[in-house]
This record gives sequence, C-alpha cells and structure tokens, in this order.
Amino acid sequence: MTLLLKNVRPMGGPVTDILITEGRIADIGPAQAAAETVVDGGNALVMPGLVDAHVHLDKTLWGMTWRGHQAGPTLDDKISTERRLRTEWDLNPERQAEQHIALSAAMGTTSLRSHVDIDTVHGLKGLEGLLAARARYADVMDIEIVAFPQSGLMIRPGTAELLDEALANGADLVGGLDPYGLDRDPKGHLDTIFALADKHTKPIDIHLHEGDELGAVTTEMIVERTLALGMEGKVAISHAFCLGMQDRRRVAGLTEKLARADIAIITSMPPSRPVPVADELRSAGVRVAGASDNVRDTWAPYGNADMLQRAMHIGQRYNWRMDADIEVALDICTYGGAAVLGLREYGLSNGCVADLVLVEAETVAEAVVAAPVRKQVFKRGKLVAANGKALA
Amino acid sequence: MTLLLKNVRPMGGPVTDILITEGRIADIGPAQAAAETVVDGGNALVMPGLVDAHVHLDKTLWGMTWRGHQAGPTLDDKISTERRLRTEWDLNPERQAEQHIALSAAMGTTSLRSHVDIDTVHGLKGLEGLLAARARYADVMDIEIVAFPQSGLMIRPGTAELLDEALANGADLVGGLDPYGLDRDPKGHLDTIFALADKHTKPIDIHLHEGDELGAVTTEMIVERTLALGMEGKVAISHAFCLGMQDRRRVAGLTEKLARADIAIITSMPPSRPVPVADELRSAGVRVAGASDNVRDTWAPYGNADMLQRAMHIGQRYNWRMDADIEVALDICTYGGAAVLGLREYGLSNGCVADLVLVEAETVAEAVVAAPVRKQVFKRGKLVAANGKALA
Ligand SMILES: [Zn+2]
Ligand SMILES: [Zn+2]
Repeated sequence: MTLLLKNVRPMGGPVTDILITEGRIADIGPAQAAAETVVDGGNALVMPGLVDAHVHLDKTLWGMTWRGHQAGPTLDDKISTERRLRTEWDLNPERQAEQHIALSAAMGTTSLRSHVDIDTVHGLKGLEGLLAARARYADVMDIEIVAFPQSGLMIRPGTAELLDEALANGADLVGGLDPYGLDRDPKGHLDTIFALADKHTKPIDIHLHEGDELGAVTTEMIVERTLALGMEGKVAISHAFCLGMQDRRRVAGLTEKLARADIAIITSMPPSRPVPVADELRSAGVRVAGASDNVRDTWAPYGNADMLQRAMHIGQRYNWRMDADIEVALDICTYGGAAVLGLREYGLSNGCVADLVLVEAETVAEAVVAAPVRKQVFKRGKLVAANGKALA
Repeated sequence: MTLLLKNVRPMGGPVTDILITEGRIADIGPAQAAAETVVDGGNALVMPGLVDAHVHLDKTLWGMTWRGHQAGPTLDDKISTERRLRTEWDLNPERQAEQHIALSAAMGTTSLRSHVDIDTVHGLKGLEGLLAARARYADVMDIEIVAFPQSGLMIRPGTAELLDEALANGADLVGGLDPYGLDRDPKGHLDTIFALADKHTKPIDIHLHEGDELGAVTTEMIVERTLALGMEGKVAISHAFCLGMQDRRRVAGLTEKLARADIAIITSMPPSRPVPVADELRSAGVRVAGASDNVRDTWAPYGNADMLQRAMHIGQRYNWRMDADIEVALDICTYGGAAVLGLREYGLSNGCVADLVLVEAETVAEAVVAAPVRKQVFKRGKLVAANGKALA
C-alpha cells in the first residue's frame, strides 16, 4: 500500500511530496515514482498528528443535547455530581468515548491519553467502554488508558482493588488524584499507586490540582517514590498548578527535582488557574505536553478537543508572540505530547509513522493563531478526517 | 421596507418570528402579516449584534501575507516597531480598516469602538483612513473612533495639537495611554486629555496597562478629574490590569470610586495578565464591556475579532460554568458593550435597532462555549454576513 501526498509544505517549508508506504513515511521530496493512491495537498502546511495528553473519553457529553452545568465550585461537588449524573443521564462510556474520538480525529489529533474513572459505584464499566471504543477506532486513534480513582482512593475502600483489576484488564497506566487535598492520606495514596505501578510494571499519571505549598510537597513525595523505584521517565503529573505559584525560587527547586526524576508535566493551561511555566520546565529538561482535559462534560461545559487552538491558548498564556515562540506552543501539542506518551517514530521524517495533519496556513505560527479547519488528517497513512469532519 | 425573520429562538427561547420595519424590530411573535422579504432562520438562536468595545482598525495585518512578530517585550518596543513597520510595510489604514470591519461583520459584530494612532510621524492619516472606511461601511457597522496618542503625548510635543485637530475632524472620543508608565507625566497627560474632552464635549477612553499600585493611583487621578468636570458616564478605562491586582481590598476601594464616577471598564481579558474581575465590577454598578483589542497586528499575532469566542475566554478566565454565569460572559460582549458605547435602543425588543446574529445553538451557554459560525448577521435589518462570511 503506497500513498503519495503531493504538494504539501512540511511545517510551512517549501512545497514537496510525501511518499507513504505501509503507514510510514518512506520519502519526503519530489515524487520519483508512481503510487497506488495519489492525494493532492494543494500546498497546505503539513504537521505531524496532534497529541492530546490528557482527556476523559468516558465523561464527555459531546453529541448529547445541551445540559447546563450543575456542580458547585469544589472538587468534591464535581465528583459527587458526576457520579450522580452518570446514572441519571445514563452516560454510556463507550458511546461517549466514540463521540470524543471522532471529534478529536476531526481536529487532527492522532494519539491521545485518556483517564477513566474507576470507583466503587461504577466499577470497571468505564474501562470496558473505553477498551471497546479503542478497539473499534484502532485505525483512527492511538489511545493510552489511565485507570484512576476519580472518587478517591483511601477515602473509598475497595478502589485500590478495582485499580488492580483495571491494570490487569487493559489499562495502560495507573492514575492518582490530589493525594492530600482530596484523599486526605498522601502517604497511603501514593504508596498504593506506586505499588500498583510496580506490580504491573506500568507507568503513572497523577492528577495534581493541589496548589502552592500543598502541591509542592506532594510533588516532592512523587519525586522521592519515582527515584526509589527507579521509575524515571515513567511518571507524569497532570495540571501541577503548584508549579505556577508565586515563589519562583521554590518552583525552580521543584523543577530541578522533576528533571532529575524525568517526571513529565501535562497541562491544559486553564486560564483561571496558576499554571506551570512551560519554557522554564523545558529548559530544565522536563518533558511538557499539552492537553484538552475536560471536553463539555459534567466538570466543565467548555472544550472542543482542538489541540491547535490549545496551542494558541498556550502561546497567549505565556505571551509568546515571536514565530519561534509560537512554534514552541505547537511543539508542546505535538512532539512534547509524543515524548510524554512515549510514541516511537513520531514526526516528519523517513520511517516515522504517517500521522499527518494538513491545514491552510502559510507558517506554523499562522496555523497556531488561526487554528484553521483541518483540511485532511491521516492516521498511519489512512485518511481519517477531511474538512473538519471525521470520516469514521 | 419590512423583513420577516421566521423561525428563530431569541436567546435560545421558544421558536418565534421577528418582524423588522425600517431597520427596527417591529414585533416579536408569530407572524400576523406578510412582509416584503421573508427569511427562514431555521430555528437558529438569535441574539443582538455583538459589540466590540476596543479594537484598532488601523493596525490589523488581516488580509496580508503572514508577517512574523518583530517587537520586543516592552511597550516602547511595540510602539517604535509599529511606527517603523507602518512605513516599511506601507500599512494603509483605510484598506486595513476595511479588512477588519469585514472580518468583524462576519463574526457578528455590529457595533465597535476603534482607537486610532495619532502621532507626529503619521499625523491624522490613520483617522482619515478610518473615516473613509467608516463611511463606506456605514450600512454594516456602527463605529466610534477614539483619537489616541499611541506614541506618547507629553514625551512627543505636537501630539496634543494633533489630537485637538482629530477631535475637530471627526474623532468621537479622545484617548490616553499609560500616563505615568509610558508618558512619564501623569498630571500633564491627564490634564491635557481632560481639557481636550472638555473643549470638544467628547468622551474619554484611556488605555491603562499600568499594573498594581501604579495603575491604582492613575485610576484615582482619572476618577478625580471625571468628578471635577462632571464627566460621569463619559469616561472609560481600557485594560485596567491594576484591577486584577492581588490586594483585593485596594481594588474594592477603587471599584467604589469607579462606580461613583460611572467610569466604564473595557477588557479583552488577556490570559497572560492580571485582569479586572468583571462580576465584582458589575455588582458594584460599573459598566463592563468586552473587546478584541489587537487583531493580528504588529502588537500581537493573535486575534480573530470573534466576540463570541471572546465571551468564551471571559467565561473560562473567571471559571464560570453554570449557564447563568456563561450568559453573563455573553452579556459583557453584547449589552455590556452597548452600555459603554451608549448605543440607544439596543437589544431584542420592539423598537430596538435590528442588529441580529443567528447561530446554531440550543442555548446561550452553548453558543458561548462552541462559538459556532455565524449563520446570519443583520445590521439594521439588512443581511451583512452569512455562514461566517461578510457579504460586503
Ligand atoms: Zn483530568
Ligand atoms: Zn488597544
């Protein structure tokens, strides 16, 4: 199976062609030979597939009628409201995951990491739904699944056992959530999660909303355990609002520790919260990935799974205006995400998996600030979306 | 001239019809009589025209080839870089204003306030360009023009005289800019501007980027002069980053003074800066309007003039999730802007000017979080944009 993608501009560079063989980039340059299929890119800019490093496929209300937000402002409110509405609204994780995957594909995302709620009320239903959706969309999206204790771990006996079961039944990572702020027992929480990771030889991705000094100490606890278990490169912290705190000297110390333990930071860059400072982290050698997080769910009515628009938000948040800086914003949503998800052979060179996104834009910077409709999206060399619509 | 707009849902309510006579809403309810023209809204949500309270029509690069950002991080860098590029790139204010107006119309904006640079290098050329563009697009957009000293007032002798001339030649308001932070003589700056406003009986709109205590004292200076000249209701402060400062007790004192002097606050809600807290201001009786500010110009490469997306940014910045709160975000970009611009007969009731925007959305909240393409935009009952494209 060969596909020749003619007249595209890799990262906004000169017009060229891309030859794809068996789902991989075989050659970038003026086409030398015929191919079974030829697609004209019309001089569009081509970039590698967008990577969304933190979503909740099982939670989205996408595709359903409008439902006004019900949860109060605290984390507890959101958790209990969601657990209630899951039943009241008959939220089907498989159906909703498919809606989200199709939306993400339409936006040019070709790989994503999804968390899935594991709790004593709904058990592994979410995981089962995601596994089914992942199997059905295997040609469209690479998906990592994080089994995580959304409703608490130590405060909800039986959850650790369910996480264990989830990891034995297809979850790729184990997750955690505000070990002290929500779960009230940070030592118990983190020891449990790291033990599960160790037992199943699987990586960790922890939701950490804990702010300021609270989150800072939890971050240190995570670093200590990562180093003790030799899990360098296998742990990520999502959100890490504490890294946006005022005391930049304190943050510099944490950053150095994160780099030493090769712990990645994943951020959706919410405009209402302090956020990690991506360029400081990257300069220190910390992998940073961008993410959508909630997409129109009971947690937040916002979100559209558009990682090109997310790059715009990232650029605006850091006040990046130069083209080179805006390119970093996109890098966080492409190569940065790929480094966190551990995608092999990601990018625009020979041998890379042919996950490609075409947009009408002169430059990468324009692609970010305009976030134009995705003209064509290829997953392993197969067209999966066109003109902003998923084909599946 | 009568137009019957059939099958629309005012603010997402039940389906009804809107009868428009001579550019005004004559009746909202099931159509009783025939009209010269009938348009089917297809059950779209209809809202009043969006109001963009702060743009720079003369600055945008919209419609030009991509130009990477050149200016350094300081205000001085941006001002001098822009003055240089205006000449180097032959930026024609009239042509660029027309590009911006067409873009804004496509996004559903029906009224806007634009600042225009007045300086000793380019004189009144910007104003002349805007006046010409405004005249040509009189049927599409209501435009207020603020003559403002972008390159400084006291530090650039001759500028006050040019502002005086601008006010005599069609500018509707006089503007100011960081009286202390940039212009180094806040007393001289503000006295000059208030004297010009008094002389021409025209309102004031001051760019105030000054942060924290610096901006707080300048705000007090503006309040004092507003009260002394009896200019209550005639003064606006754009940006007012100082109102986002940590010391909320200090801000509460300023807010009370702003309310007393009926000084409006205009904000584009930049995610990289502290911003005024809209609901606190509104609760205190201060008018608050939303704005695009720079749209792809030498100041910043971002921006698309989409005030529905701006409402989304506002909602996200304040972490507003309930439908009622998200409706406030839209209100800031509609009725809030109308109150600041002093638009008479604005809204969705009989007698109001028929500035209308139709979008496919179930509810106002959905319209804000999805910011869907503008299906139809009417200015005084005339169709000016459809399916996201301006007709002019
Ligand atoms: Zn999450
Ligand atoms: Zn401005």
